[in-house]
Amino acid sequence: MIFHTFTEQKLRQFTEDVFLKMGCPEVDAQLAADVLLKSDLRGIDSHGVARLSGYVRLWEKERINATPEVRVVHETATTATVDGDAGLGLVVAPFAMKIAIEKAKTYGSGWVSVKNSNHFGIAGYHALMAVEQDMIGISMTNASPLVAPTYANERLLGTNPMCYAFPAGKYPPLVVDMATAAAANGKLEIAQRANQPIPEGWVQDKDGNSSTSAHQLKDGGSLLPLGSDKDHGSHKGYGLSATVDILSAVLSGANYGPWVPPFVAFLEPSANPVGEGIGHFFGAMRIDGFRPAEDFKNHLDNWIERFKSAKTVDPDKKVIIPGEPEYAFEQERKVQGIPLIDAVVNDLNELAAKLGIEGL
Amino acid sequence: MIFHTFTEQKLRQFTEDVFLKMGCPEVDAQLAADVLLKSDLRGIDSHGVARLSGYVRLWEKERINATPEVRVVHETATTATVDGDAGLGLVVAPFAMKIAIEKAKTYGSGWVSVKNSNHFGIAGYHALMAVEQDMIGISMTNASPLVAPTYANERLLGTNPMCYAFPAGKYPPLVVDMATAAAANGKLEIAQRANQPIPEGWVQDKDGNSSTSAHQLKDGGSLLPLGSDKDHGSHKGYGLSATVDILSAVLSGANYGPWVPPFVAFLEPSANPVGEGIGHFFGAMRIDGFRPAEDFKNHLDNWIERFKSAKTVDPDKKVIIPGEPEYAFEQERKVQGIPLIDAVVNDLNELAAKLGIEGL
Repeated sequence: MIFHTFTEQKLRQFTEDVFLKMGCPEVDAQLAADVLLKSDLRGIDSHGVARLSGYVRLWEKERINATPEVRVVHETATTATVDGDAGLGLVVAPFAMKIAIEKAKTYGSGWVSVKNSNHFGIAGYHALMAVEQDMIGISMTNASPLVAPTYANERLLGTNPMCYAFPAGKYPPLVVDMATAAAANGKLEIAQRANQPIPEGWVQDKDGNSSTSAHQLKDGGSLLPLGSDKDHGSHKGYGLSATVDILSAVLSGANYGPWVPPFVAFLEPSANPVGEGIGHFFGAMRIDGFRPAEDFKNHLDNWIERFKSAKTVDPDKKVIIPGEPEYAFEQERKVQGIPLIDAVVNDLNELAAKLGIEGL
Repeated sequence: MIFHTFTEQKLRQFTEDVFLKMGCPEVDAQLAADVLLKSDLRGIDSHGVARLSGYVRLWEKERINATPEVRVVHETATTATVDGDAGLGLVVAPFAMKIAIEKAKTYGSGWVSVKNSNHFGIAGYHALMAVEQDMIGISMTNASPLVAPTYANERLLGTNPMCYAFPAGKYPPLVVDMATAAAANGKLEIAQRANQPIPEGWVQDKDGNSSTSAHQLKDGGSLLPLGSDKDHGSHKGYGLSATVDILSAVLSGANYGPWVPPFVAFLEPSANPVGEGIGHFFGAMRIDGFRPAEDFKNHLDNWIERFKSAKTVDPDKKVIIPGEPEYAFEQERKVQGIPLIDAVVNDLNELAAKLGIEGL
């Protein structure tokens, strides 16, 4: 595989230019670029600039509104529902998280459910906004249906990620940011390109049989929930995914389950939607609403040190602190640049030519 | 296996009598019995009256305080930390959940972290307290270390359950109540008694090798996180378990990770604790803080109907709605009684003889 490496600044400018060409206000273009770049910097290549042309295609189909009027439609002191007005999730999600943070500043916690939005990038970006304010950050989103619940032979749920982020003292924030499926779709795509088998327990074929072919998802199969099968707790992965779906969409008035609109422009949304767009859910809790922030951070540092120094099965593999590998990527890529594979560079240069902006 | 069936009323009275003999105030004895009976009624036999003599043994060792002064030690409008004063978790947890609910009534949401507590029964009991008020209920607890994080060959985390409960309209509440390990310890105990092998992916032996022997946990092995191994997402189960541990204990000032005191009286707590007792975390959010409760319930009913009617791999196995099997048990056992296995009945009768109360 051939990689080309770009500076953060170069990719950021390119990404802003694309969003400006879509008609986004400058402040929105900068914010959306920041969310995508954070993903590339943190090594989550599937959710960064590689998705740019996908957003543009949805905008071309008028399924993304570049100039949304994002607004609160219902609220109490510590809860709110936001209507994203079909805007970029990359813009709507930070808007909603800011409201959660403001409520937490005044009342200790804030909780915002969002409808009528689109793909919001990495969940971690939004949760980390709260961490910067010495708060615990929570973010989740539903997604287009790819996962079959336990016993089902239908795609009824998305990979529905949930993220919890906590500020530490001398260590980077502890960030649990995970899809509730056994394996993310991005991992399948890598195996497809390499034409390699995948582990049992990631997908089932169109008849519901376990399969090790990465191509099954394109042939009518489904992803499996975290746990893979009933014996190994797939009903728990299904339950977590259901929780994300309900908090993000049943609570806000977005589409849920099999009605969630596809992320790809070549598939049409349901003709009979049960809500508006896709849904997200965000939370922020002030650490010092429970105990002094310094005490919490000192104990979280102690937690981290104990887990990092744990006895391991293989002496070459240490216990990993959630969020630590992504933090290490971020430090490295800020200096050494962001590598993109050939196919992504070509795709972005075609996009640039189409939009009439400078290529990479 | 021989079962004896008892009426709910009979077991409830017996359980109250045991807690009264421990010196609990009458209101606490009634509440603690209600939590345990709810577990037996809902078919979660591992967390009901079968645990009674375990609570008594901890009380005998003065690790449970029968007359605690449970109190709020820190709070904001919507957050609080509760000190359980080493009381029964069965009493401390509902106390804390009531505070979360009261805060939610006034401000939309309420969040309570608890230290210095003990085993709280089933997480579902506490979350369902919020559902009765048209709120979303959340409950979780850390637990004594049995689970090895991904790559570790040490027990650093408990089976740390998390529960999310949602009110539906014409259907029972949707309740996701799950340990974050691949399999709960109770399932291992069943296989141990029957001397049967267990699926790969539930435990590893003392050297960190995968094992199908249910006895490994007693021979220095560990339970595995949900996901079982790295390929199947065990780092996600580990991340969820870490989240429960941090919200329950690092946030409240309870013990966390390997320092959580054992639930069994024959194992001593750490000589160098990092906090007080075990920790819990509770949340309540008013549905109508986001949208009218009727709208939410109608859509959750629609969600439930769509999932119940999903196409399945095996036509004899339908997709299960989280909480539905437990609800069905509850309806049945309220009428037909609660079956207990011989070993549990004998244990309870020995307990009765020791305490000088009427046996079963």
